[in-house]
Amino acid sequence: MTTAAIDVQAYNEKRSSLISQDRALRVDHVRAANHTALEKKADEVIRRIRDVEAKTVWGVKHDGVPNAFPGMEFLTGKQIVLKTKLFQLLSKMPKGAVLHAHFDLATNCRIILDNALKHSLIHVRVPRALDVITIEYTVPQVQPMHRDYVSSASSINETVPDGSWISLTKARETFPSELGGKDGFDKWMIRCMSINPSEAYGTHNNNIKIWVKFREAARVIQSMVHYVPIWRATVQQFLLELVADGISYVEVRINFHRRFMYSIDGEENVPHREWLKMFDEELSAFKRNQAEHGRSHDFFGVKIIYTMIRNISPEEMKWYMDDCITLKQEFPHLITGFDLVGDENIFNPLIYYIEPLLGFKKRLEELKLDIPFLFHAGETCGDGSHADVNLYDAILLGTKRIGHGFSLVKHPKLMEICRERGIALEVCPISNEILRLTASMPMHPLPILLNNGVPVALSSDDPALFGNMGLTFDFFQVVAASEITGLITLGELARDSITYSMLNESDKKTVTENWEKRWKAYLEELISLPI
Amino acid sequence: MTTAAIDVQAYNEKRSSLISQDRALRVDHVRAANHTALEKKADEVIRRIRDVEAKTVWGVKHDGVPNAFPGMEFLTGKQIVLKTKLFQLLSKMPKGAVLHAHFDLATNCRIILDNALKHSLIHVRVPRALDVITIEYTVPQVQPMHRDYVSSASSINETVPDGSWISLTKARETFPSELGGKDGFDKWMIRCMSINPSEAYGTHNNNIKIWVKFREAARVIQSMVHYVPIWRATVQQFLLELVADGISYVEVRINFHRRFMYSIDGEENVPHREWLKMFDEELSAFKRNQAEHGRSHDFFGVKIIYTMIRNISPEEMKWYMDDCITLKQEFPHLITGFDLVGDENIFNPLIYYIEPLLGFKKRLEELKLDIPFLFHAGETCGDGSHADVNLYDAILLGTKRIGHGFSLVKHPKLMEICRERGIALEVCPISNEILRLTASMPMHPLPILLNNGVPVALSSDDPALFGNMGLTFDFFQVVAASEITGLITLGELARDSITYSMLNESDKKTVTENWEKRWKAYLEELISLPI
Repeated sequence: MTTAAIDVQAYNEKRSSLISQDRALRVDHVRAANHTALEKKADEVIRRIRDVEAKTVWGVKHDGVPNAFPGMEFLTGKQIVLKTKLFQLLSKMPKGAVLHAHFDLATNCRIILDNALKHSLIHVRVPRALDVITIEYTVPQVQPMHRDYVSSASSINETVPDGSWISLTKARETFPSELGGKDGFDKWMIRCMSINPSEAYGTHNNNIKIWVKFREAARVIQSMVHYVPIWRATVQQFLLELVADGISYVEVRINFHRRFMYSIDGEENVPHREWLKMFDEELSAFKRNQAEHGRSHDFFGVKIIYTMIRNISPEEMKWYMDDCITLKQEFPHLITGFDLVGDENIFNPLIYYIEPLLGFKKRLEELKLDIPFLFHAGETCGDGSHADVNLYDAILLGTKRIGHGFSLVKHPKLMEICRERGIALEVCPISNEILRLTASMPMHPLPILLNNGVPVALSSDDPALFGNMGLTFDFFQVVAASEITGLITLGELARDSITYSMLNESDKKTVTENWEKRWKAYLEELISLPI
Repeated sequence: MTTAAIDVQAYNEKRSSLISQDRALRVDHVRAANHTALEKKADEVIRRIRDVEAKTVWGVKHDGVPNAFPGMEFLTGKQIVLKTKLFQLLSKMPKGAVLHAHFDLATNCRIILDNALKHSLIHVRVPRALDVITIEYTVPQVQPMHRDYVSSASSINETVPDGSWISLTKARETFPSELGGKDGFDKWMIRCMSINPSEAYGTHNNNIKIWVKFREAARVIQSMVHYVPIWRATVQQFLLELVADGISYVEVRINFHRRFMYSIDGEENVPHREWLKMFDEELSAFKRNQAEHGRSHDFFGVKIIYTMIRNISPEEMKWYMDDCITLKQEFPHLITGFDLVGDENIFNPLIYYIEPLLGFKKRLEELKLDIPFLFHAGETCGDGSHADVNLYDAILLGTKRIGHGFSLVKHPKLMEICRERGIALEVCPISNEILRLTASMPMHPLPILLNNGVPVALSSDDPALFGNMGLTFDFFQVVAASEITGLITLGELARDSITYSMLNESDKKTVTENWEKRWKAYLEELISLPI
């Protein structure tokens, strides 16, 4: 060898060593010794497909999508994603647990609308008459009316003068033909229940404004879901969608802000314990059905994180804490955590509730009840803002996981604490992007978390609004936007979603063992693909 | 006190301590003991103005800017920034050194055009006839022609059939009236020499596409600047703009890719040593002028980082390294570093040049010459891509600073090395945003660097294309987008821009002492403002 060649060889050795040191904390490096030959081979398959499609799919022209790239804005790129082999293969992957989803906003909004159209008590009205202009910015109010309510309106625009209501089905049937008739009605409703690209990337393109649209759409959906028959149907739909996407277990957040939902007769008198009872019944029915089809190993079940919006007074918060304790006592197998939600940038920070939160912890100790905090925190681009500072409080209050924790990467000490204490982050890539914390997946801080050894579980947040049903879309974005992360990494994240769940050790073992079996079968299918 | 109050007090103590630990590595915390009462008071003034303007300026409606917020997209927000008191005050701040700017792309492009219009040998032609449609996407070729050249074209569109040229001044005078005449010509030229909002945030809105526009505009500008009289004028302009913005010292990158520039007679025969000779003469003239006006303390001078584009073969690279050594031997006071530039995502990575780079280091040792590497690296959203991996090579090759290092925040080990070895990052906030690495300043990873104790100097990169002349705009974006960073932080970054320059210790001391004097005067002015 020439001197130059020797120099280069010595250099390359130092280089490999430095790269290894730098990646030493990554979950896929820490557990590298465990990875089987099968996992490595399947990982190669996925990498090969990703590399090919970077050119054949993302490198070619697409009508209406001028700037396509892997990991691009989800709402614009979704139709391209759906065409990829990578997506198709990931959709079959067993994905572990969903640890961050808001129940009432978690299912396909088209199906929520279809369900609502089955019930004549669901009514609607508009604040101004709809025409080809106003329909673009008018959002309806939706509400189940009492069974005795008699509507005077024969079309949606007749609700305007006196604020009366019209049943959703009638509004649809009589929707003005110049607005597209029934199809036009459906399109308008879906637009009001979800976020579209021109809102996320145009009219509402910043983190403050997009939340306005978010709340607007959430209100329409929740007005439908908080009606007993739709609530029940939504539980079924939720479970169907998750199981179809290869998910084994769920910890879902339910927002208990509204104290009563609407009964089948349209009376606003159904208390929280009934919500859980119905949830439990639907869950049992679903599991029975799974068992009858010989699939009881695939799906372990659902637990519920009690959730309240962070826009009330500390006094009111105490009521909800008491309510949470009462529900835990009645449904110990269901309630598995407590959380506060809502746009952290404008609502109250955790420190605002410090007295009730400390009181709640004490009370739980006295009662020997286990309702861990699973706080949303740091869902922000702020640096030292209230939303960012919530991370300190979430951790000091002993949160077991962090919802989003988008700004955690700014905090070296907090990342160290999360790593050492095993506080996992519930990372929701597509949610973060649509809510304009990151412009696209390549800008997302996930690689920083991974490289710092912070435990991570990927999640979907609000698929009704975002269109990312299941976990496949989020897994896709993560693996498309990195050259380090591969299938092995996704597998470790799926494992960790079970490990960092609130299940007890024995249940974790059961769920993990079932997952490992499905994982092996999945890998075998992958490597047997014709290339 | 009640038990609850005691609990809250104990909690708040733990909280303060955790926040301090988390911020312990920040330059403004490390040096907290040094900060004078004057600095703290002035810092408060700036924070107060920032808070007020967050509401009075950023919280109100602006025509044509629907989604305004502090730290927003620079090209859209610039006109709002210019109206703020915060900008006005920061413009007077002494800012230390500019450590990352590309000379030929660093000055006001309007003035470059005006200079070009003074010279009849500068010619222009277009690849297709300009009309109201084609003008939108047609970029001219510009070139100094030989003094004997006789143009046959009497207007710019007459250059199309035979590829002949027309002098820039004549093209302007005869510019079609339906395209706006002279004004239309100027607007078109400026658009071709810079990046506008509809390109950065619309047609070219991703990191790959915006580089296409970047290279196009850079080519037009460089064709003007590489003409002896304009080169000389540009040195003067460069120094004027920086001194006006309170800058004490500059390490500027000059791109030596083109082996010859055009002589005053339009002959392409002026070699690199002449470029430096002219630069040196203009610099001396400028400094004499400064001294005559009693301002010699304010501006220390300029050194040059030899720069080559990373799109050539390793063999060709050796020619440029020899050239760099020859220039260093003739201009030891000017040449202060070596770097490779160009879009890292598509051009060659450092490892491609590993043999010549290792050879260059050896040769410098033998010759006892000091030309440190000051590499661009990690100017990317990639995770494990060539551009991202460049960071390992830059560091292993002993780079003294890193240009951009945008993706460094993904690398815990590399951040530790930078902190321990004092490898500063030249962070260019506005450049990163316009080149679509980050959608806006609140998403920029700068706080991660600061919180990890990585040394940072802020810089402007390519003001001709971005419109961020001086450093005030970049300082503004940084301080507007954080609630932790304040004037004290900006002061420390200014100090560090001198500390991490390539000046020898004695010169650093001189520049720092002068800066400290100006800083104190600036602070005193700030605190004496009527509130």
